[in-house]
Amino acid sequence: MRYKVVLFEPKYEGNVGSVARVMKNFGFKDLLLINPPELGDFSRAMASHAVDILDNCKIACSFEEAVATSDLIVGTTGIAGASDDEHIRMPFYTPAELKEKLNGRTGVISLVFGREDAGLSNEELKQCDMIIKIPTSDEYSVMNLSHAVAVILYELGGIPGGKINLAKHDDLERLYVHYRSVLEQVGYPKHKCAKTLLMLRRILGRAMLTGREVQTLRGILRKIEWRINK
Amino acid sequence: MRYKVVLFEPKYEGNVGSVARVMKNFGFKDLLLINPPELGDFSRAMASHAVDILDNCKIACSFEEAVATSDLIVGTTGIAGASDDEHIRMPFYTPAELKEKLNGRTGVISLVFGREDAGLSNEELKQCDMIIKIPTSDEYSVMNLSHAVAVILYELGGIPGGKINLAKHDDLERLYVHYRSVLEQVGYPKHKCAKTLLMLRRILGRAMLTGREVQTLRGILRKIEWRINK
Repeated sequence: MRYKVVLFEPKYEGNVGSVARVMKNFGFKDLLLINPPELGDFSRAMASHAVDILDNCKIACSFEEAVATSDLIVGTTGIAGASDDEHIRMPFYTPAELKEKLNGRTGVISLVFGREDAGLSNEELKQCDMIIKIPTSDEYSVMNLSHAVAVILYELGGIPGGKINLAKHDDLERLYVHYRSVLEQVGYPKHKCAKTLLMLRRILGRAMLTGREVQTLRGILRKIEWRINK
Repeated sequence: MRYKVVLFEPKYEGNVGSVARVMKNFGFKDLLLINPPELGDFSRAMASHAVDILDNCKIACSFEEAVATSDLIVGTTGIAGASDDEHIRMPFYTPAELKEKLNGRTGVISLVFGREDAGLSNEELKQCDMIIKIPTSDEYSVMNLSHAVAVILYELGGIPGGKINLAKHDDLERLYVHYRSVLEQVGYPKHKCAKTLLMLRRILGRAMLTGREVQTLRGILRKIEWRINK
């Protein structure tokens, strides 16, 4: 899947720079601007380490030109349609629903974001194949342009998160045996032992320990043993 | 669950305003600032319709003071720990993993975001109960402060998306019957009919039509029928 981020008549160069930055944060490259403002120093400052995306952006004069080579044109709106007989803003999907729909597909997708103040007009929304709307509070639904881009690219980017290496189960079991031994050594009431060990297992279980953490916990127990046997 | 958004020594008032705006977008209210810059007109401009959040923000002088009444202190980092024997940044969780862990719990949670340039120091991270990191591209992992807040609040806010009223199954079935009738009326090759109707069912099925869209499609078919029988 190849995504193009299309900004329709952005007014502020700072927003264009901010969008470039968050594109790079989430691994996107293709930025396309329709009737943008002049991009000067401030856009570059906001782009920070993503000036390459600004330098390689493409400029188009019209919506049609911008999305000509796209397989799917996804329009964004901050204002939900009031009823489904309008068709323009309805039905709309959440970014998560869009992601689910794109699962397993391939193609070129234009993600079109409107002006900071007025968004995409009805005419522009009509040219989109699909409308998405970020779920927001009813109290204040209109997001800052680059925030909306950030949230949607975060959802679509699908950059895998940190894989946490969980502790091996054997090591955990040895930890629990060690706890039992320490409880006995400190004269913990025998009739309470099983229940307390179960509680420890529950607590440490849901904490999803790493191997290193298990070793450190056992180090603490060894330290306790050393002290009581001294 | 009650969340506090804690900004640790933000340098730019514009970022504080932007954070206030996205907080309101996602239904969050409590903003707490540690050693903030002076908040003037620019922060209010960036907050847009969320100046009430700026006006009601609390100021603290230290990390300890800021998080004193929290049940869980969640630190954010843009830089993943290199190995799990450091403990400071490891293990880290994604915002989605945090959300899953908080499922069904209640309490006061501080979400702590560091300085724009240096983030949270090791000393500050050590005081956090849990570390989260937004999954980003390896090429450029450091996000704009308010973008990071936007993504995390989007994930945690859990504001339900638009519920799309799907068409009733009976109406869809009537649509397919209508299609079959039209295919027959237009002399579509009989041996291809079944396969083509199945294809239509597949296409319209995955498009998840609304009731209104079904009626409109049937209106088109009626129009075709009217024309061919004229």
